[in-house]
Amino acid sequence: MIRILLEMVKEGMWNMTSSTNTGRTRILFQGDSITDGGRGRNEDANHWLGQSYVYLIAGALGSRLTATRPEFVNRGISGDRVSDLYARWNEDTFSLKPDLLSILIGVNDAWRIVEQEPSGVTDRFERAYRHILEETREVQPDIGLVLCEPFILKTGATEARWDIWQEKITGYQQLTRQLADEFGAVFVPLQSVLNEASTKADASYWLHDGVHPTAVGHQLIADQWIDIVQKSPLAIR
Amino acid sequence: MIRILLEMVKEGMWNMTSSTNTGRTRILFQGDSITDGGRGRNEDANHWLGQSYVYLIAGALGSRLTATRPEFVNRGISGDRVSDLYARWNEDTFSLKPDLLSILIGVNDAWRIVEQEPSGVTDRFERAYRHILEETREVQPDIGLVLCEPFILKTGATEARWDIWQEKITGYQQLTRQLADEFGAVFVPLQSVLNEASTKADASYWLHDGVHPTAVGHQLIADQWIDIVQKSPLAIR
Repeated sequence: MIRILLEMVKEGMWNMTSSTNTGRTRILFQGDSITDGGRGRNEDANHWLGQSYVYLIAGALGSRLTATRPEFVNRGISGDRVSDLYARWNEDTFSLKPDLLSILIGVNDAWRIVEQEPSGVTDRFERAYRHILEETREVQPDIGLVLCEPFILKTGATEARWDIWQEKITGYQQLTRQLADEFGAVFVPLQSVLNEASTKADASYWLHDGVHPTAVGHQLIADQWIDIVQKSPLAIR
Repeated sequence: MIRILLEMVKEGMWNMTSSTNTGRTRILFQGDSITDGGRGRNEDANHWLGQSYVYLIAGALGSRLTATRPEFVNRGISGDRVSDLYARWNEDTFSLKPDLLSILIGVNDAWRIVEQEPSGVTDRFERAYRHILEETREVQPDIGLVLCEPFILKTGATEARWDIWQEKITGYQQLTRQLADEFGAVFVPLQSVLNEASTKADASYWLHDGVHPTAVGHQLIADQWIDIVQKSPLAIR
């Protein structure tokens, strides 16, 4: 299937190159509820981006880059594990032809496993994440890739089984960093920033239930994302 | 009715003083769809603040003020005219006992009048706004008041009847500034900032339909709000 797509691209049947019709750089954010933030599912321009780090990044970079006016798109979906991202990669990523793709995923894979739900009966995080990245590099070899580190803090939902949570997420953090190296992606560390923040105010001030960021937690993520990405070769101009 | 409330407050039957139970400064945002931003109507902590300048202000100030952790509350409602605000002032303002109250209102009063709808048959902007401010000063004499200037740009919804739109909004802008003086409120100018922004990118880059801000437009409002309020005697510490 991928070969067929690649042939179509080579033969110009399907313009897969980036810098879309508008000529503006398109940045796509993928992930779960942390990215989603209640974003619009239709063309409602008022509530299109959701309330998450995506909105904060779009506001901050959009107001600095008025000459080039980058386009920010959010396709996060609440509850998604990495395999759920893979399932909808055609419609929600490839068809949008992003120039830069940022992924934040992992906490739902961990959640299902820690809570021993049927949807977490085996750990498919590494395998499914690798599928996504391999296919993405094949279909859009020059796409800019940003992998954000999954994170938790000890409060609310994570408190009762903290040791299992921490073991699982620490593993996913190492894997995400490793996959970033392997696929030439920029890695955005987030756990260390949150750990440091929790020395200034309670964990729940940043992640209200140990998993989901407050507006202030999202600000922290957005600032770190902008700092790391804008200093990298993928910097949005 | 107000006298009864004030008597209750005086007699300690109802603690109306600010600095709420939590001891944290509470900042309340009131307005229409521009403020609302699809905010939560229930206690869903993930989508509580909506996607608007409120979210951007909460993120930015919340991450700077970790020692005092101010609380940000959004009670904007899409479609509201100033008289709609007045109608729900008890439940959506007084009962929340904010330390600081920020209002952005006017565009729907103008809209209804410009479009000659039944809901705009007379112009009640000044009278209803004064009712709100008088009553607010009576019930919470020491409340910090911030009045934001209503704004439009010439694109989308405002284009066809631009002259009438502009005349109406210019009047509301002068009235808002005058009411701010009269009631000891900090006035946040926004039209000039948007006018200047539109020399850098199309009007629709900031207000997608001439009325509703994009994420970038909201960033502009948030930056100006923070700049003006934090330099004023109402600065949030």
